Amino acid sequence: MSTPVTVVGLGLMGTALAEAFIIAGHPTTVWNRTASKASPLAAKGANAAATIEDAVAASPLIVTCLTTFEDTRSALAPVSVADWDARALVTLNSGNPADAREMAAWADDHGARFLAGAVKNVPAAVGLPDTLLYYSGDQSVFDDYEKTLTVLGGDTVFLGEDPDLAALYEMAVGGTLLPTLVGFYQGAATLQSRGLQVSSMVRFSAKWLDMISSLLPIFAKEIDTGDYSQPLSTVDTFIAGAAHDASLGAEADIDIAWHAPLNDLLRRAADAGHGGDSISVLTEVLKGAEFGADK
Amino acid sequence: MSTPVTVVGLGLMGTALAEAFIIAGHPTTVWNRTASKASPLAAKGANAAATIEDAVAASPLIVTCLTTFEDTRSALAPVSVADWDARALVTLNSGNPADAREMAAWADDHGARFLAGAVKNVPAAVGLPDTLLYYSGDQSVFDDYEKTLTVLGGDTVFLGEDPDLAALYEMAVGGTLLPTLVGFYQGAATLQSRGLQVSSMVRFSAKWLDMISSLLPIFAKEIDTGDYSQPLSTVDTFIAGAAHDASLGAEADIDIAWHAPLNDLLRRAADAGHGGDSISVLTEVLKGAEFGADK
Repeated sequence: MSTPVTVVGLGLMGTALAEAFIIAGHPTTVWNRTASKASPLAAKGANAAATIEDAVAASPLIVTCLTTFEDTRSALAPVSVADWDARALVTLNSGNPADAREMAAWADDHGARFLAGAVKNVPAAVGLPDTLLYYSGDQSVFDDYEKTLTVLGGDTVFLGEDPDLAALYEMAVGGTLLPTLVGFYQGAATLQSRGLQVSSMVRFSAKWLDMISSLLPIFAKEIDTGDYSQPLSTVDTFIAGAAHDASLGAEADIDIAWHAPLNDLLRRAADAGHGGDSISVLTEVLKGAEFGADK
Repeated sequence: MSTPVTVVGLGLMGTALAEAFIIAGHPTTVWNRTASKASPLAAKGANAAATIEDAVAASPLIVTCLTTFEDTRSALAPVSVADWDARALVTLNSGNPADAREMAAWADDHGARFLAGAVKNVPAAVGLPDTLLYYSGDQSVFDDYEKTLTVLGGDTVFLGEDPDLAALYEMAVGGTLLPTLVGFYQGAATLQSRGLQVSSMVRFSAKWLDMISSLLPIFAKEIDTGDYSQPLSTVDTFIAGAAHDASLGAEADIDIAWHAPLNDLLRRAADAGHGGDSISVLTEVLKGAEFGADK
């Protein structure tokens, strides 16, 4: 028989997780503070638990998908150590490493085996073979339930036993999202200033992101070795590009004030004598007081 | 017989362009201010012109790949109107739309038919079937030489007759590069703060950029229609994420000052009542004085 699973927190992502378990044939119990959110899943075969205690009691594997770790502890507060009885708690929410460690300590105090995870995709991608989720914490939970967790996405990875590693990678990887989007939105505003459709650039932007992806292994190697002396693209090249941005911002009447600190990182690298080095040397600027970091 | 082509400017990209023409069997003439840069190409079969006038005289199609439009005009300065004789000039350099218009006026004055282009990839990608180049300007040049230009990359696009459209798209699309890289470098510094290899996150970061790409058509539609009311992800969600960044920055001892203006864009959107709208509404913040833009 498939492992019974409980899903706590039925927002868009939590609902997608529960649906994936139902489709895969797992007996699925669901709970949400606003109980009405469980109804569509109950119609699809889920068991809608009346209380959080019942929800936890129903399965050996509890997957939570609330907004924060604090929300998670709040939802689980009524569940006692005896209720947990070494059940597995798998969290799938955003949070920083410190929050993840706090959650791990809480799970330890409450007698739950704890695995912290992150879904690196949108709800519509849950359950697809290529969808990435990663986990860290109690390896026995991952080993016991890896097959079940793979229902949520075929690219399921265990990062290590430190419970905050998933949060660390979540933030390290996720940190490109807002800056990349703002870069795209600026481009969108630029096209609109000429009466052009933003949709006309989507194909080009996607290819450009592919190009950036293709460079990441090279940059990672530079950073891992600390050798920035064989540049694919130099700091000075980016400094030259900044002047174009200023000109275009003025012409298109777009606020490009958000470039200022990026340009400052470039300037600090150049001032420290790294203008001819690889752009990856900005990693050192972000880390280092030697570059006049204003932390 | 294949169209004779001249390539002016033999940096890494110009050399890659010339090699692609040579490999495709085009009689290829090359010129560079520092003549020694032509030697490796001459060894591969290129005709190394002694002067820029000879270089232009050798072919009906002149492709330039210098750093700026100003550098391009400087290199071409000795070439007379009679020398140009309605030859086609195709520029492949960075620049802003105003610079491209100035270049178009110069070409008009000098009797060259002008097409401005951009290579949206690295030198190693020149000549591959999927490599994107786009062009704008004199359509007769594109029509006459499309097949020849496709030697440089299979995804060759004509954007329109305005000579600055290629520069406009170049900047609109290219604007994601630096912010995306700095996001990646911040993640790299985060992993290093824990003694982890940056290479361990490359695969995850590439998938994350794929995920971002998959959202661009949705965001473009929101921006084109101006309807931000069906959010995939809200401004408020990103504001919540900003607090995690601050916490992680402190823990990992990383300079995250570059987030401040991004967070300011979020705050201005929320202050104007768009906290529950799609994150794409930041496009309006970048454009609009109504959001307190400080342009």
